[in-house]
Amino acid sequence: MKKILIANRGEIAVRIIRACREMGIETVAVYSEADKDALHTKLADEAICIGPAASAESYLSMERIISATVVSGADAIHPGFGFLSENSKFAELCEQCHITFIGPDSATIARLGNKQEARNTMMEAGVPVIPGSQEAVYTAEEGKKLAEEIGYPIMIKAALGGGGKGMREVYTPEEFETAFQTAQKETENAFHDNTMYLEHLVLHPRHIEFQILADHYGNVVHLGERDCSIQRNHQKLIEESPSPALSEELRSKMGQAAVKAAKAAGYTNAGTIEFLLEKDGSFYFMEMNTRIQVEHPVTECVTGIDLIKAQIRIASGEKLMFTQEDIHINGHAIECRINAENPEKNFRPSPGTITDMYLPGGKGVRIDTAIYSGYTIPPYYDSMIAKLIVWAHSRKEAIDKLRSALGEVIIEGVDTNVDYQYGIVNHPDFVNGTTDTDFIRRIS
Amino acid sequence: MKKILIANRGEIAVRIIRACREMGIETVAVYSEADKDALHTKLADEAICIGPAASAESYLSMERIISATVVSGADAIHPGFGFLSENSKFAELCEQCHITFIGPDSATIARLGNKQEARNTMMEAGVPVIPGSQEAVYTAEEGKKLAEEIGYPIMIKAALGGGGKGMREVYTPEEFETAFQTAQKETENAFHDNTMYLEHLVLHPRHIEFQILADHYGNVVHLGERDCSIQRNHQKLIEESPSPALSEELRSKMGQAAVKAAKAAGYTNAGTIEFLLEKDGSFYFMEMNTRIQVEHPVTECVTGIDLIKAQIRIASGEKLMFTQEDIHINGHAIECRINAENPEKNFRPSPGTITDMYLPGGKGVRIDTAIYSGYTIPPYYDSMIAKLIVWAHSRKEAIDKLRSALGEVIIEGVDTNVDYQYGIVNHPDFVNGTTDTDFIRRIS
Repeated sequence: MKKILIANRGEIAVRIIRACREMGIETVAVYSEADKDALHTKLADEAICIGPAASAESYLSMERIISATVVSGADAIHPGFGFLSENSKFAELCEQCHITFIGPDSATIARLGNKQEARNTMMEAGVPVIPGSQEAVYTAEEGKKLAEEIGYPIMIKAALGGGGKGMREVYTPEEFETAFQTAQKETENAFHDNTMYLEHLVLHPRHIEFQILADHYGNVVHLGERDCSIQRNHQKLIEESPSPALSEELRSKMGQAAVKAAKAAGYTNAGTIEFLLEKDGSFYFMEMNTRIQVEHPVTECVTGIDLIKAQIRIASGEKLMFTQEDIHINGHAIECRINAENPEKNFRPSPGTITDMYLPGGKGVRIDTAIYSGYTIPPYYDSMIAKLIVWAHSRKEAIDKLRSALGEVIIEGVDTNVDYQYGIVNHPDFVNGTTDTDFIRRIS
Repeated sequence: MKKILIANRGEIAVRIIRACREMGIETVAVYSEADKDALHTKLADEAICIGPAASAESYLSMERIISATVVSGADAIHPGFGFLSENSKFAELCEQCHITFIGPDSATIARLGNKQEARNTMMEAGVPVIPGSQEAVYTAEEGKKLAEEIGYPIMIKAALGGGGKGMREVYTPEEFETAFQTAQKETENAFHDNTMYLEHLVLHPRHIEFQILADHYGNVVHLGERDCSIQRNHQKLIEESPSPALSEELRSKMGQAAVKAAKAAGYTNAGTIEFLLEKDGSFYFMEMNTRIQVEHPVTECVTGIDLIKAQIRIASGEKLMFTQEDIHINGHAIECRINAENPEKNFRPSPGTITDMYLPGGKGVRIDTAIYSGYTIPPYYDSMIAKLIVWAHSRKEAIDKLRSALGEVIIEGVDTNVDYQYGIVNHPDFVNGTTDTDFIRRIS
């Protein structure tokens, strides 16, 4: 690979550009009119404007991105996360145009992107799944009947869902109909699809996900877990590795299940198997994310492995350079997402110009961001503006470092969740490592 | 320890404040009138103004710093590097005032600070030293006679010297007298002392130094070496660990010599043994630095050990938490010093206001700095304004990362050596790892 087009924006685009530069690969940025002063636009070797601010006409426009790739002569596209990263049609289009899509093949994305199909694949492979509907559900009536069979509480999910969209928790049969209809409407609006499914809602679980890497020669390894239990409305806020809830035995068992899951799916490139972990140690496959994730840096910190470079190498046809035995989890890493939003006003996004900025540095502190002093955060995209990642020998030391580093952050001109995150990091449940996915709701 | 006063400024003061915060120790900054808006002044829990901009009346004023310590109720002083960090009288004053000086005891500093005494200690311990004068030299006449015995080329050095001050290289007897007198005059001005010594000048050596840690219970370990061969006028520009010039065998041999040197000196706390390494693999003790060093982060990157926290723990009376066998060198780290100076105008310092600034981040990139956008670099102190440290699996990857990261640095409003450093990092000799301490002179 000589030239890669990055079909994304923000910190992940910058992250990918850096990896390419370090590998001696030329980079092409694409940007919307709202992003002409964005860091990814400035850092890449070339930058091509692909349309107006609206994502549908720029970062989600397959035709324009393919055109930019052809025009620039790039060999490959790195999709980052969000946008087209898990769109099997886009991956298919790349395949048809003989452009390397840095990720799994389109058929695998399609299979795993449909939650019901993914679930069936896992069940066949013997990976534990949450009891739920075997088939797609389209009406509230059939849903309600199925819910009785599965057992309350119930989670309603969109087959094509993501980012919390089209999801509803239902605790009693009385709530079911309204919840289903609202979720389905949301699904139709977001994904132009009305396929829903149901599953048993695991109460107070931890969200544990395993990072895997798979090459084109049947080699699959896992890089340990990330604990992403600190979530608000299914959006992750803080992620860490290793999880304080996993024994060595459980880690090994779940890791093996993750590798089995990836193999069953015929997976290649970097991917993540998300599990729900119950207090008794039982765990269930939730879904597989067929892309790099926001929280990938915590895995990089504890394994030393550069996941973006690994993705590029795998897509280039290289064999994995390590076996499971070579991978060691060293120390503890925590990532804290910094969003431009106002926690006191129901987390309303706060776009605007950053008038002054100071971000911490030093030993064990990593910042992944695309903001700078004077930068104007546009109102059109995700409100995450930076990731603060810390590494230390122990979880306690990592928390102390995160607390100290968060205390140094200055971002003026827009509202941020920094103080809110500081509160979480100092909460006894977080410090003791006893949180679950309901933690934020409980303390709100 | 509950409260530590940091008797320093700039990035090292910030580095120490961060370590203290992470350990739950309160911090007291001292600052000169020129530093009232400095980052260390803002970040510490308390800040005490100790005088005007001139170092002699602020950062070098023992009385004022001791007063600030007593007034603030701090238990200990961390001296950082430079200023009073290797001043045995200051360490002694701390001892008399029952303030913990975070470093070795005053007698050890005095013994090792006198280069002749240090040399004698090493010779007795069987650590190889450079052939040179056994006793102090005060006049050009006795010096010239001695030089003939030692053999040209000769290095003239100040007994209390540091930072290149009071040093001269002499290649022929004809140059000797003038060189000696100039060096002695410089020494008198800088250190109020005229004690000189001579040694054989090792041509084209590498500067290899070993980091050691020693507790109060006789435990001494080394944390591998740093290669600091990229120097201009004896000022280090780029440092890395491990050295591309050391075989495992030589590393082990030099490491053992470093531990022997520290034990012979009765050393405690963090220290550095500097060696000159000749092409044939013979090495000579140069001096021992009895303080933390500018380049300590590269050792932190490859060992994972926090050297500032280790200093504080040792000074608190804790035992070392690791043995030599526990210390593993992982990957490769390189530090690049960023100075506010103009390489095209003979590296003339360039103080002034930073009007715009962007520093890179992301995987394997560490920035230690005390500058921020809008900060005014005062003209009174050292021109080093930031340290860019990278870590990667291999030396090649680390160089690629350093090149990419340096390319991202934007510092506007003052001149910097960033482009100059970029040139070094891309020089074939540096890339091949074949530099020595004459490299900069050769390419200039």
